[in-house]
Amino acid sequence: MDCDLMIVNGLVKSTPNDNPDRANPGFIIINAGKVSSTGPMSELPDTIKPTRTISADNCLVMPGLINAHAHSPMTLFRGLADDLPLMTWLQEYIFPAEAKHVTPEMVYWCSRLAAAEMVLSGTTTVADSYFFEDEAARAMKEVGIRCLAAQGVIDFPAPGVPDPSLNINVAAQFINSWNSDELITPGIFCHSPYTCSSSTIIKAKELARETGSRLFIHLAETSTEREQSLKEHNLTPVRYLENLGVLDETTVCVHCIWLDDNDIMTLRDTGASVASCPESNMKLASGIAPLEKISAAGIPVALGTDSSASNNNLDMFGELATAAKAHKASTLDPTTLPAIKIIEMATTDGANVLGFQDECGKLEIGMQADIILIDLNKPHLTPIYECNSLLTYAATGSDVKMSIIAGKIVMEDGEIKTIDLQETMNKVNELATKVKSAT
Amino acid sequence: MDCDLMIVNGLVKSTPNDNPDRANPGFIIINAGKVSSTGPMSELPDTIKPTRTISADNCLVMPGLINAHAHSPMTLFRGLADDLPLMTWLQEYIFPAEAKHVTPEMVYWCSRLAAAEMVLSGTTTVADSYFFEDEAARAMKEVGIRCLAAQGVIDFPAPGVPDPSLNINVAAQFINSWNSDELITPGIFCHSPYTCSSSTIIKAKELARETGSRLFIHLAETSTEREQSLKEHNLTPVRYLENLGVLDETTVCVHCIWLDDNDIMTLRDTGASVASCPESNMKLASGIAPLEKISAAGIPVALGTDSSASNNNLDMFGELATAAKAHKASTLDPTTLPAIKIIEMATTDGANVLGFQDECGKLEIGMQADIILIDLNKPHLTPIYECNSLLTYAATGSDVKMSIIAGKIVMEDGEIKTIDLQETMNKVNELATKVKSAT
Repeated sequence: MDCDLMIVNGLVKSTPNDNPDRANPGFIIINAGKVSSTGPMSELPDTIKPTRTISADNCLVMPGLINAHAHSPMTLFRGLADDLPLMTWLQEYIFPAEAKHVTPEMVYWCSRLAAAEMVLSGTTTVADSYFFEDEAARAMKEVGIRCLAAQGVIDFPAPGVPDPSLNINVAAQFINSWNSDELITPGIFCHSPYTCSSSTIIKAKELARETGSRLFIHLAETSTEREQSLKEHNLTPVRYLENLGVLDETTVCVHCIWLDDNDIMTLRDTGASVASCPESNMKLASGIAPLEKISAAGIPVALGTDSSASNNNLDMFGELATAAKAHKASTLDPTTLPAIKIIEMATTDGANVLGFQDECGKLEIGMQADIILIDLNKPHLTPIYECNSLLTYAATGSDVKMSIIAGKIVMEDGEIKTIDLQETMNKVNELATKVKSAT
Repeated sequence: MDCDLMIVNGLVKSTPNDNPDRANPGFIIINAGKVSSTGPMSELPDTIKPTRTISADNCLVMPGLINAHAHSPMTLFRGLADDLPLMTWLQEYIFPAEAKHVTPEMVYWCSRLAAAEMVLSGTTTVADSYFFEDEAARAMKEVGIRCLAAQGVIDFPAPGVPDPSLNINVAAQFINSWNSDELITPGIFCHSPYTCSSSTIIKAKELARETGSRLFIHLAETSTEREQSLKEHNLTPVRYLENLGVLDETTVCVHCIWLDDNDIMTLRDTGASVASCPESNMKLASGIAPLEKISAAGIPVALGTDSSASNNNLDMFGELATAAKAHKASTLDPTTLPAIKIIEMATTDGANVLGFQDECGKLEIGMQADIILIDLNKPHLTPIYECNSLLTYAATGSDVKMSIIAGKIVMEDGEIKTIDLQETMNKVNELATKVKSAT
């Protein structure tokens, strides 16, 4: 029996519940981009003839991580301005820099860099949201990362959408042009309730429903946003969106820090899901989301890095560790968000939130072969008692030895196999030189 | 002119205030373990004849990081038990595991592993505190890391000190046996005000004063500790220690989470300093220390990882990022603990706290050559606007390409040059097998 790729002798962790050990290694067989068989080495059929066999000795073999919220092109602004009050940061640095420097070329090259950074650190699926998202999607596809690419919608002149009255049209065109790609799934990113009118939000959701797309929206990120919403609409941000009729199973609410208990019940009742970005939320001093309550209510929660302008990296492993620790500190309860829950958020729950539950997030027969190998022979990963704990509290993105997406080896031993990474870094450095000279 | 080592073409960042750029690379000349000269490449004397020249193209060259609080041997318990209530964790897992598994051999091998992990991730100085500290010091010296090794003192039977009435004697012997080592500086670690009697704490401080040693003590780590102290002594933990007369410029108070404003003024007035371990404090749900207030009061603050049992790694870069973000989240102020302050804590302030201000923490003529090289040619470090921000928010320990301590290359390209790392990992894995079979 021929197959494309066979991984042998690894500690195979197919789901968050698995805790494989070295005494019982396993195999995975990949055909046509999907997992076609998996099991312990003792059950490996001896008739398999793989095109390539990967020896995963001393490696954990697990589903690639899912980054549920990023603005990849903003990698250009990594470290441009930190430690500033939110409004100073946005209005004096980020918005002017975006107005001046966001071009299709910038989106393309910075998304390539972001995608490479993510693949190198074990992310195999990302939900990206920005403008000129067509260029971002092109870059993601070239690198070979699975991407839910969401075109930005905002009621101001935006990169590629100088006339905001056309924002929904642009999003519709974007969705139409990417509606049959194997790696790229198009979506819509309505920036927020305070930058989009109710009419825009409703139209965006209509488009999402018509096209079967995910709608992302920043929601309840700051206390100021909540206060303004109460003042303007006499409703919390969540209740305001509920009133607009845009919350349902395919709406992904991003951030969700300033929620009260009623907001959480509302989210639950509508079926909406949450993408949380703890590192960005903490760095911008927006706060720490009540993920323990959101999660306890049964709302699907995914984790995201947000952009490198507010993180300042796209390493999901860092996000896992921070998420686990931050919520223990905010609740003063060390049992909050245990490691298994964190790994669920980054794999199975992340897939649910993005609508990819039948494609990725676990390694079962028929699922996409989105797989990472983690080199366990490292001092900081020694010894090993429990894998979820190891992944959450001790591992970092640099421990990822190989990233396979849709059955294709995209990264091996620190090398991106699909693009010229040095060229990409050089291009981004050139773009940054212009940013520096302008500030 | 001969010299031992010359680093050329690097972006030399001698102090937290330096923000070197690629257009202006520099050199460092090292002789007899110390920095003997440094400057821009344009000023490099052409008469230098180094034994070895290190090309630092595209590398940041900076002082090694200072980890101000660790329990290295507890690396054996990394991930043994997580996400548990503090008392369950301590009483059902950590204390029994320590009682059963802490031997001189365990302390030696696990300290070797911890030292290797630290050197690999850019730490060149560590303040370690445990029992059988003699074995820890021996391991640290073999690896070649600068270490303030503090022998544990506690009023219970402890590893190597079955009779607690001898705990001060054991500490005195330890200090005496290491009082003239180049890399190892001995100290005393009084566990806490709730595990040591007032008499023990006073005697420990007397010994510290007599020998010119640092005294470390866990202080105000949990709200329970504070409540108990108020109940038993009618004093907060800080005021209790002040009353005992043990707070002064050479006392390092570790954790300091549950402080009120009077406690902070007391610490300031006595001259005592603080070692904060944000990741451990968050993971154990002890809380987030008011570092912004402590620091604003002028109290020297250093950062530490605590042990791998409660972190679960010893990567100071992770600690920097978490410290910066956690305190912004706890104050809801994004200007709290800006990147430059974080880098000070991990270098110059860290050196002050440990009494090493004339030895390390900055790269100036006459200082110890404790130097790390960070490879900047990485996607997640692209682009670069400001170095403190880069180090705090984007870099990780795995970006460290070389660690030099006292002029000796201890790690190069991921390889520890001083010990057999694989042997060390194997030994720790063997020890962990015994832990597993006992639990």
